[in-house]
Amino acid sequence: MAEHGLSRRGLLSGAAAGGAILAIGGIGETAEAATTSGSLPASVDAVVVGGGLSGLVAARNLVKAGNSVLVLEARNRVGGRLLNHTLKGGSVIESGGAFVGPTQNHVLALAKELKVKTFKEYVTGDNVYVSKTLGTLKYTGTVPPDPLILADAAILQLRIDDMASKVPVDAPWSAPDAANLDATTVDSWLRQNTLIPQVREVLKAFFQAAFGTDAEGISMLFFLWYMATAGDETHPGTFERASGTADAAQDSRFVGGSDLLPLRIASALGSRVALNAPVRKIKQTSTGVTVVSDRGTVKARRVIVAVPPPLALGIDWSPLLPPRRLQLLQHMPMGTLMKVDAVYAKPFWRAKGLSGSATFDDGVVRTMFDNCPADAKVGVLLAFIGGSSWQRCAMLPLAERRKLVLAAFAKAVGPEALNPIEYVEHDWTHERWTMGSPVASVQPGATVAYGSTIRQPHGRVHWAGTETSTYWAGYMDGAVRAGERAAAEVAKHL
Amino acid sequence: MAEHGLSRRGLLSGAAAGGAILAIGGIGETAEAATTSGSLPASVDAVVVGGGLSGLVAARNLVKAGNSVLVLEARNRVGGRLLNHTLKGGSVIESGGAFVGPTQNHVLALAKELKVKTFKEYVTGDNVYVSKTLGTLKYTGTVPPDPLILADAAILQLRIDDMASKVPVDAPWSAPDAANLDATTVDSWLRQNTLIPQVREVLKAFFQAAFGTDAEGISMLFFLWYMATAGDETHPGTFERASGTADAAQDSRFVGGSDLLPLRIASALGSRVALNAPVRKIKQTSTGVTVVSDRGTVKARRVIVAVPPPLALGIDWSPLLPPRRLQLLQHMPMGTLMKVDAVYAKPFWRAKGLSGSATFDDGVVRTMFDNCPADAKVGVLLAFIGGSSWQRCAMLPLAERRKLVLAAFAKAVGPEALNPIEYVEHDWTHERWTMGSPVASVQPGATVAYGSTIRQPHGRVHWAGTETSTYWAGYMDGAVRAGERAAAEVAKHL
Repeated sequence: MAEHGLSRRGLLSGAAAGGAILAIGGIGETAEAATTSGSLPASVDAVVVGGGLSGLVAARNLVKAGNSVLVLEARNRVGGRLLNHTLKGGSVIESGGAFVGPTQNHVLALAKELKVKTFKEYVTGDNVYVSKTLGTLKYTGTVPPDPLILADAAILQLRIDDMASKVPVDAPWSAPDAANLDATTVDSWLRQNTLIPQVREVLKAFFQAAFGTDAEGISMLFFLWYMATAGDETHPGTFERASGTADAAQDSRFVGGSDLLPLRIASALGSRVALNAPVRKIKQTSTGVTVVSDRGTVKARRVIVAVPPPLALGIDWSPLLPPRRLQLLQHMPMGTLMKVDAVYAKPFWRAKGLSGSATFDDGVVRTMFDNCPADAKVGVLLAFIGGSSWQRCAMLPLAERRKLVLAAFAKAVGPEALNPIEYVEHDWTHERWTMGSPVASVQPGATVAYGSTIRQPHGRVHWAGTETSTYWAGYMDGAVRAGERAAAEVAKHL
Repeated sequence: MAEHGLSRRGLLSGAAAGGAILAIGGIGETAEAATTSGSLPASVDAVVVGGGLSGLVAARNLVKAGNSVLVLEARNRVGGRLLNHTLKGGSVIESGGAFVGPTQNHVLALAKELKVKTFKEYVTGDNVYVSKTLGTLKYTGTVPPDPLILADAAILQLRIDDMASKVPVDAPWSAPDAANLDATTVDSWLRQNTLIPQVREVLKAFFQAAFGTDAEGISMLFFLWYMATAGDETHPGTFERASGTADAAQDSRFVGGSDLLPLRIASALGSRVALNAPVRKIKQTSTGVTVVSDRGTVKARRVIVAVPPPLALGIDWSPLLPPRRLQLLQHMPMGTLMKVDAVYAKPFWRAKGLSGSATFDDGVVRTMFDNCPADAKVGVLLAFIGGSSWQRCAMLPLAERRKLVLAAFAKAVGPEALNPIEYVEHDWTHERWTMGSPVASVQPGATVAYGSTIRQPHGRVHWAGTETSTYWAGYMDGAVRAGERAAAEVAKHL
């Protein structure tokens, strides 16, 4: 899928000849912003590799502390896995990360500082469970009303939370029974702990959206760690907080779209952000670091690398990254996830007393959300298509996939869903500089074997990126936390 | 660990000023050989990326068919995971792949053509089993004489062979029950299928050496497929053929070292091999392919990529590789394996009636082999240290690791082992252009999800490398087969 951030945002509209200083057109604000060409400074205190949310937060904090900083971003836009999409009528939705919720204090504080408001995800009315065997059923709460599921699901959830509570968020490799848990896939564990296939099918809704992979590709240890990180220093992570809507990870969204966060930080950083500057080599000596990008070479005292894990493998490192770090990076593939939105003149389901939230136990759509903008000027339904569902339909022609998606939507909220005024897809697996989404999952065995290198600096190189966070790894909050931590590490040395 | 191929081989000794055409000093032969600097041809029929055995075989076959070919190799040597090491006394052993055996017909035929002889791995006398609980026991055959192990091991082996026989070597994703087998780690399966922890410990000897990872990191489907590939078109693969010595994968070695195969092919290819030429970009148009390397840009009608899977991710692809291929590459980490050799004035264990082969149920050394050169002028004992054993000792100071290794050798063959005249290690995880060894393992779930892209050409780009073979993937024979297949695919279009 083509990158189309520029034209949508009008980033290029303010391009000055030669200097290529751009104006970012957000929702009203205009500011001096990132360069897209031209020479880079010869040296700075710190180079940040990657202009996603995590890297930008790191840069922002280092600038606040009085350091000279340069962000080198491979794409012609900032934001990484955050990307606004403007609908034909002018409303803004997200092609990438969107939801926030309680205990995600770091991203919420940042949003407040940047004057980006949140609004509650619509949860009024009934949710819908679309079952192959039971048909379409309305329900409230979080567990679909399948009698086969209810009892098992409640017990499993308690067990998962209990097991997760024993996994240290900053050292899952030291959890009790870590080696065995890391050698067992979630799929194997579920087969041993529930006899009800429907439970596994319904859990797919969560796994596919949260990891972009099904339960067969991740270990129990990684899964439990991920649940443990769905909280903060005073609220232990739980499955409910990771998977739920109200009061949980899908509680709210940002007015104007989550992309406003990176856009506003980049705007403030101005020409400290260099776009179109993929980093190819990072060379350290006893005196500093040399970073080679397609737009030139910059010297720095410290470097923060804030890119999706597989991308760090493609950099020429001198000296080479330590073997255990290279192994960790090789064992952290990005998930496969597509976000699909269907737009309607009105959120017609709300008038029917439906929340727009649905869970499916079959088919390519496993989770559906109401994704209307804050003003609900148009109606938007969102589907996450990840993991094996992505495998089933990502390669189909768009028209066929659209048909499958809309048919699923119609099962949940009625035949009106078959005729959207707009249909939007974004598949992150097509993106050179992300390689998939929403997050990289540490493969079975690898958390115990190599996990402890996740935040270990490599000489003068430090690591950010949401995957390195100890809370809300894989979420915007984790990106912010990781950027803050990496900046603090580096600031000590500047 | 530093690359020290050049000085050992005297590759540079024949360097001509300017043109940098080198003489390869093998065991007697001298020939015009690879270039290390200077300009590349502007265009050729086919570019081969990667000068390991697979890429060189592909290039050789294309040249034989009358095509112009250029091999672009990142290192300053050819051979990839094959690398001879010359001992102080002049004898040659291997730092990388070494063993060959029956049904590995393609590499054996190639060796014959190249006039590289084989000799039998020494198997006379008793093997030794070093057990934490039973002490040191002599035995013959393949299964250690632990009464706890014998019955279970025999049954497991039969079951594994039976299950492997149902896995198509060219399409493991279509095996019966493929999804479940791919969602189950070998470790989980073994826990369900044997109650004897010793069996799992002894199997580690095989997993660590064969995959460079323990049983927790690989799925049953990938493991069964790998066993199925340990054969040829008329001899179904078996666990015994993959793991055994006489009449199996460790049956023989090459006189003068396995590296003679790539060296002699490269020698014949001459200046068609460009060293120090890492490939950074591969760009396709409707008319051809442009390959950008550090030594220049070359146009080609077709390209064969023959590099370890994780390295292909680091290339800038235009158009980008298809998402499923990118996912496969992200799910194929290289193993962790170190080869350690201790050299003695004589193979003293042979005089004691010992074969020099040992299996350990504990400690960092799990497998030991007699690794004397063909003339047995010196005695050499070899240990594979892979997977969790690698994790336990690869980061230790060399002196400490040496102590652990020699103590293990001494337990197996006596205290003479404590005082070698030479001690040699090679850890492939330190190598930028290999990233680990002996092979890339497809992660749990990923064979079913993405495996079918393994040999799918990307437009004008075709895939070689041992991991793409349908027999003896991960071995030299697989490398040769894959190179031959890729060359045949490309030749059709030239």
